Amino acid sequence: MTWSATILTLYPEMFPGPLGHSLAGRALAEGIWSLDARNIRDFTTDKHRTVDDTPAGGGPGMVLRADILYGALRGVGGTGPVLALSPRGPSLTQSRIRDLASGPGVRLICGRFEGFDERLFTGPNAVEPISIGDYILSGGEPAALVLVDACIRLLPGVMGATQSGDSESFESGLLEYPHYTRPATWEGQSIPEVLRSGDHAKVAAWRQARSEEDTRLRRPDLWERYRGARGRSPSGARDDEGE
Amino acid sequence: MTWSATILTLYPEMFPGPLGHSLAGRALAEGIWSLDARNIRDFTTDKHRTVDDTPAGGGPGMVLRADILYGALRGVGGTGPVLALSPRGPSLTQSRIRDLASGPGVRLICGRFEGFDERLFTGPNAVEPISIGDYILSGGEPAALVLVDACIRLLPGVMGATQSGDSESFESGLLEYPHYTRPATWEGQSIPEVLRSGDHAKVAAWRQARSEEDTRLRRPDLWERYRGARGRSPSGARDDEGE
Repeated sequence: MTWSATILTLYPEMFPGPLGHSLAGRALAEGIWSLDARNIRDFTTDKHRTVDDTPAGGGPGMVLRADILYGALRGVGGTGPVLALSPRGPSLTQSRIRDLASGPGVRLICGRFEGFDERLFTGPNAVEPISIGDYILSGGEPAALVLVDACIRLLPGVMGATQSGDSESFESGLLEYPHYTRPATWEGQSIPEVLRSGDHAKVAAWRQARSEEDTRLRRPDLWERYRGARGRSPSGARDDEGE
Repeated sequence: MTWSATILTLYPEMFPGPLGHSLAGRALAEGIWSLDARNIRDFTTDKHRTVDDTPAGGGPGMVLRADILYGALRGVGGTGPVLALSPRGPSLTQSRIRDLASGPGVRLICGRFEGFDERLFTGPNAVEPISIGDYILSGGEPAALVLVDACIRLLPGVMGATQSGDSESFESGLLEYPHYTRPATWEGQSIPEVLRSGDHAKVAAWRQARSEEDTRLRRPDLWERYRGARGRSPSGARDDEGE
């Protein structure tokens, strides 16, 4: 079955954009996934095709109207969870991507201006806000491209099975271990000896240790969660003293 | 001065992509920023234009060679910090985006396959890895589009001054407050009374309270950091009991 991405946007010309090339582009051409990027203005009924209005209580910018967006959502069709890209949402995770990729598709609403009327996220037909990271974009479109790209690579037939390894970052709660390839020495830096030993058990142990070390150093937030999930006290002594 | 984005990629045809439209597209046409997206293969010297090789120590996939990437970096020119988009990097933040936007530009390396030879990130000419979020993409290109988009909207002349308010999410360490606009009532949900009161002080207090509440509920990680930064104990009792 074709996985479907339905996107409501004020800039449908941004799609498929990067998703029309490489892995995602080939999968699109092969019918593994489908894309329907539609202009929110196509679902308005006034002659100015109005989608926004000034914020209640004052302040700069314009706010996307919940009634317009909801009407567009009913009109566009598509299938799967409805998410609105917003920095006010909870953070997107790889585990959420897996859920979305294993379903029939996703429906995404891209904001511009100051954002969405909050009532889109509350009430009987609430849409879910989601954030791809702690930074502000010009609109939801680049975020939608990211979310869909992350899903597509997991669809059956898109990647060779050999490339979807469980060792990837976030799958185990840790960053992936570092990679090395030829040349054996470059700019005075050599490939770690253990990787050239041919001893698979030693290689695996070294990679696990490096995964843990890099996560601790670069992503203390993930590290604390990982330790917590493994039953060690997340508030216990940090092993900054070394491995 | 023109802010420059220099991008090394195996898929230069993905650029400008969404950055050729709307806010970023207009700014590109106006010369506020410039884009140089170049194929890493253009800097190879063998007839197969090789950029990758098998991972030392074994495992699936292919690894981008540090020597090839570094050669491409020296060849391409451009200016500003060099970042490689990688899920193994520290997380991109709005504060980092502000730093990058206030400089002369950025140079980005987009990976594919299993990632980069780690020696790109170590040694005398180390490149910095950076991650846009805790999920895996098919390559660095969608992440580069996100990073550049976030910078461009901050460049002088790109947004009206009125739209770059300090109240935006992450600027204060909190999520932004919710927005409402017409209609006054929709699907049984009304705009909060305080926003229609005309009392600016009350509106400001309500917005601050909602910023704090939404951050606490949706992003406990940001909330702990915010409380810590304000001198309260981040390990103290959570105020889950209410406001």
